[in-house]
Amino acid sequence: MSLLENEAVRSFVTWGTVCVVKMLAMGPLTARQRFKTMVFANPEDNPGSKKHDAPAVSENVERVRRCHLNDLENIPAFLALGAMLLVTNPSATIAIWHFRIFAVSRLLHTVCYLNGIQPFRALCYMVGTSVNLSMAGQILYCIFAN
Amino acid sequence: MSLLENEAVRSFVTWGTVCVVKMLAMGPLTARQRFKTMVFANPEDNPGSKKHDAPAVSENVERVRRCHLNDLENIPAFLALGAMLLVTNPSATIAIWHFRIFAVSRLLHTVCYLNGIQPFRALCYMVGTSVNLSMAGQILYCIFAN
Amino acid sequence: MSLLENEAVRSFVTWGTVCVVKMLAMGPLTARQRFKTMVFANPEDNPGSKKHDAPAVSENVERVRRCHLNDLENIPAFLALGAMLLVTNPSATIAIWHFRIFAVSRLLHTVCYLNGIQPFRALCYMVGTSVNLSMAGQILYCIFAN
Repeated sequence: MSLLENEAVRSFVTWGTVCVVKMLAMGPLTARQRFKTMVFANPEDNPGSKKHDAPAVSENVERVRRCHLNDLENIPAFLALGAMLLVTNPSATIAIWHFRIFAVSRLLHTVCYLNGIQPFRALCYMVGTSVNLSMAGQILYCIFAN
Repeated sequence: MSLLENEAVRSFVTWGTVCVVKMLAMGPLTARQRFKTMVFANPEDNPGSKKHDAPAVSENVERVRRCHLNDLENIPAFLALGAMLLVTNPSATIAIWHFRIFAVSRLLHTVCYLNGIQPFRALCYMVGTSVNLSMAGQILYCIFAN
Repeated sequence: MSLLENEAVRSFVTWGTVCVVKMLAMGPLTARQRFKTMVFANPEDNPGSKKHDAPAVSENVERVRRCHLNDLENIPAFLALGAMLLVTNPSATIAIWHFRIFAVSRLLHTVCYLNGIQPFRALCYMVGTSVNLSMAGQILYCIFAN
């Protein structure tokens, strides 16, 4: 259990897990909208439909899917950058605040996306991306300044 | 070669690599369906098409792409959770069975998706997601119980 | 700073960060095309639109999104395989050249995709995927040969 004694690693593992679980939750949320609207992506998913119907599109389903895709664009990037930041042996306080702010911004992003709350959704996206870019900058600075 | 002497790390690296290769295989599988149906996403991909045609959609192509997207939603999450689980120094037996069951469930998921086999595809998805959530639960338990 | 003293780890962290930043840049590039063409995915994103309009589709936006999706299919796979390759304690020279070639192939892939340059885009994709598969082969060889 030696790595977890490092406060920054502990924070990364905690918030990283929270972000991944949040991302995984989008799958069942999509399925819930599919059953609510009875709009399915594959003919075999809906026993009531005729086999060769072109799949219809539901705006309620697509909204959850776009939110999920936005997670896929940002959360794996965070996990990679966070782990690489830890390799550079950063200040624990700075690292921990990066992890916290990112995780909270992504949780709020989902709430804002699913409820169509703008411009706060864009703001949450920008905060998350800024945290990612700040970590990238620190990693590259550490590499090239040493 | 010290890390690979740990049985759980060795299992993670093996099954993680298998999952990534499976995910990478979806790209060429998509290309194969595109050439079979001559439906391309970009005008420059198909020298025979008129430049500004709206791209047509082929159900055979879209099925492979949906399967690929499902991998993107689940396999990077597995890789992150598996690595973080190893940081918590888990029981090797429990960790290894998580990795095995996840990898097999995702291989079967692809077979079921490409051949439209329901409800087994949904079952494979649920098994994979359950493994991911079980790892997340163990990680957070380890963090907060110590 | 012990891990960064390993030349291969240092190279992985550098090129991995470059790839992630490149991937993150696709988000703002998509937004730029959305504002240029005034085509938005959500009704609340465009104050000038009527609330329940079906979202239109712009080929310029979709091109950036397809390029972004291609990154999501390949760059997280690279980060996972690269990290697992390092666990197998590879030859530093071989590892470093894998990381360099992958990163350069993905940078060129984006340039080719956004400008519709074929067959160089397909070539860049194949080089990147070959690097990924080569790393996967070396990882599995190391596991099963020991």
